[in-house]
Amino acid sequence: MGKELLMIPGPTPVPDEVLRAMSRQIVSHVSEEFVETLEDALKMTAKLFQTKGRPLILTGSGTLGMEAALCNIVEKGERVLCVNNGFFGERFGEIAQAHGIEVDFIEFEWGRHADPSLIKEKLERGKYKALTVVHVDTATGIANPVREIGEVVKNFDTLYIVDTVCSMGGMEVHVDDWNIDVCLTGSQKAIAAPPGLTLLTFSKNAQEAIEKRRTPVGTYYVDFTRWKSVMQDPKSRSYFATPSVPLIFALREALRLLFREGLEKRWRRHLVVAEAMRMGVEAMGLHIFPEDGFRANTLSVFDVPEGVNDGDLRNAMKKTHNVICAGGLGKLKGRTLRIGHMGIVSSDNILKTLESIGDSLDKLGKKIETKSIVSQTKDKLKYF
Amino acid sequence: MGKELLMIPGPTPVPDEVLRAMSRQIVSHVSEEFVETLEDALKMTAKLFQTKGRPLILTGSGTLGMEAALCNIVEKGERVLCVNNGFFGERFGEIAQAHGIEVDFIEFEWGRHADPSLIKEKLERGKYKALTVVHVDTATGIANPVREIGEVVKNFDTLYIVDTVCSMGGMEVHVDDWNIDVCLTGSQKAIAAPPGLTLLTFSKNAQEAIEKRRTPVGTYYVDFTRWKSVMQDPKSRSYFATPSVPLIFALREALRLLFREGLEKRWRRHLVVAEAMRMGVEAMGLHIFPEDGFRANTLSVFDVPEGVNDGDLRNAMKKTHNVICAGGLGKLKGRTLRIGHMGIVSSDNILKTLESIGDSLDKLGKKIETKSIVSQTKDKLKYF
Repeated sequence: MGKELLMIPGPTPVPDEVLRAMSRQIVSHVSEEFVETLEDALKMTAKLFQTKGRPLILTGSGTLGMEAALCNIVEKGERVLCVNNGFFGERFGEIAQAHGIEVDFIEFEWGRHADPSLIKEKLERGKYKALTVVHVDTATGIANPVREIGEVVKNFDTLYIVDTVCSMGGMEVHVDDWNIDVCLTGSQKAIAAPPGLTLLTFSKNAQEAIEKRRTPVGTYYVDFTRWKSVMQDPKSRSYFATPSVPLIFALREALRLLFREGLEKRWRRHLVVAEAMRMGVEAMGLHIFPEDGFRANTLSVFDVPEGVNDGDLRNAMKKTHNVICAGGLGKLKGRTLRIGHMGIVSSDNILKTLESIGDSLDKLGKKIETKSIVSQTKDKLKYF
Repeated sequence: MGKELLMIPGPTPVPDEVLRAMSRQIVSHVSEEFVETLEDALKMTAKLFQTKGRPLILTGSGTLGMEAALCNIVEKGERVLCVNNGFFGERFGEIAQAHGIEVDFIEFEWGRHADPSLIKEKLERGKYKALTVVHVDTATGIANPVREIGEVVKNFDTLYIVDTVCSMGGMEVHVDDWNIDVCLTGSQKAIAAPPGLTLLTFSKNAQEAIEKRRTPVGTYYVDFTRWKSVMQDPKSRSYFATPSVPLIFALREALRLLFREGLEKRWRRHLVVAEAMRMGVEAMGLHIFPEDGFRANTLSVFDVPEGVNDGDLRNAMKKTHNVICAGGLGKLKGRTLRIGHMGIVSSDNILKTLESIGDSLDKLGKKIETKSIVSQTKDKLKYF
């Protein structure tokens, strides 16, 4: 059956070099080696985000990153507009509400992209301190048009917060060129580092908003100003809270490997495997959930065919091919299958996953020409 | 010169088994293997804390744990009493203030223990939702009488929050017997796991306080109720935020090894190495900073002798013996040396550290009979 092939939308498998970097004996968080590693990681984070903005790396999940993004620049009682067309779009609003921020949602159907012109109308009618958008929602597989929304937001006195947890490192994001003020991601997806870190960058405008706050940040650990001197110059050895030494070593190695491959090559690789995955499942007659033209290259979400139980399908994929994928999230639970293809994913991984989907559906009573579909997909992959 | 010997008050070296557990390839956070690991870790956390209370394990530093402890059970506008006789005692107050909680400090001189009878007087005169105490402060090396303070607090309608970041696993703590309502620690000290996790437990009273809140927790990621179902039964596979898979594997292994040694044996080992360290430095004529009778067994803090620069001393220890220790923290910066001796620390580590202190002081112009002191300490260690 072979080694487990983990094809969930994060955490994703990481290169052996990253595991090795993580597994060395603990060193002091103020040792020369560590502070140089942190500085490397911060510099590469800025490069990855394509920004001159200030990076902040926190121990915690992507959700903590979303919270840090919001509560540092938006004050209690101020208003935010939250684009909601997925699980994490809604979560942005919940986080804001937890902090006493006034939330307006602009809703789009799950599986449909956020429409920049409707966002524009909304921004014209209300005054918002910030707009939140999730680039790729792991529940729906939609990729929102972050660049086009940025073109809209730049004409308003509104800060632009973008969650790129499920895209950064696997899909094109240009934080500065796209007018993004606070961008955040997680370590455990297309960057292919282990879970446990969240990476953020703050634009000049975002930093100004922090400096001009009239009220203190109502929370402590994620307060940007408390981390500022640590993140500005790790070599100053200022202390705020102990970083996760092994996770920082792992992240630095993952970023090194990412840039060794090259950012554009990596985006292209993700595009290629995503196209192959989409071709394959469509050839099997499956319906891809997010609308065409706005599909993420980091994961695919498709409907479980009628008459098939989603748990049975996932179990069959696991039992017969040792391929692990994820079921539906939030209100799509039981209705969709989610295949993550990001990080160090290869064409071979896609072919094996397609084989396991086809064979499993076949076992569950759906006639699928798996062999021929996999072979056609393989042929097409050659042309990329 | 040999391998680096890391003797700082955290992060501490971890066993090879822990590094190995951490460095395996990433698995899904809802895989059977992972949820069983998390369940193991939660059960062992409760056992380590000696409590029937509910554990919560968060990705983040000890500071995040302090914040989680406070803001879950104390509401905005309510009052807390913060015992302040060290760096982290003061931080508790700062965190509370960040959350809009009213703070009264009860101050004791740095290096002196918190006096339960004075705390009692303070509790009699005011109404406090909670009292915060740091068991062992890494700046001063003091161990506060947490048990005796617990005897006082139980007679008041006040919840008892104790930070055991620098004691849990290395010194006696009985959360239930000592009437502690919220106890928190970090992974990276006497537990000897890597940094990046904070572990908390909530008593019945603390859980009741959470249920009876009149206002929502003003923050999101550390909100206990959002984690409740994940932590109550990891096998339910409920999702809130992605845990740091490798850190949980590492923690489980560290806790396994801890219980293989045995909790009481581990406390005793920490006592023995601490006594040896104290004997040794006193024999060198050095002044131990915290008062006698209230010294932590997990770290030693002593004054840098007059005429010696603390940086020179640490550099000499590093250059000649490859022993890494820490300088003074907060207002003791430049005045003290801090030696961490917790986690997997051995008698040999202590002897080598003493040798490096003595030789380095000697180099810096203080006549120290290092050889004979180390040999006497070694002899005394035999009697334990």
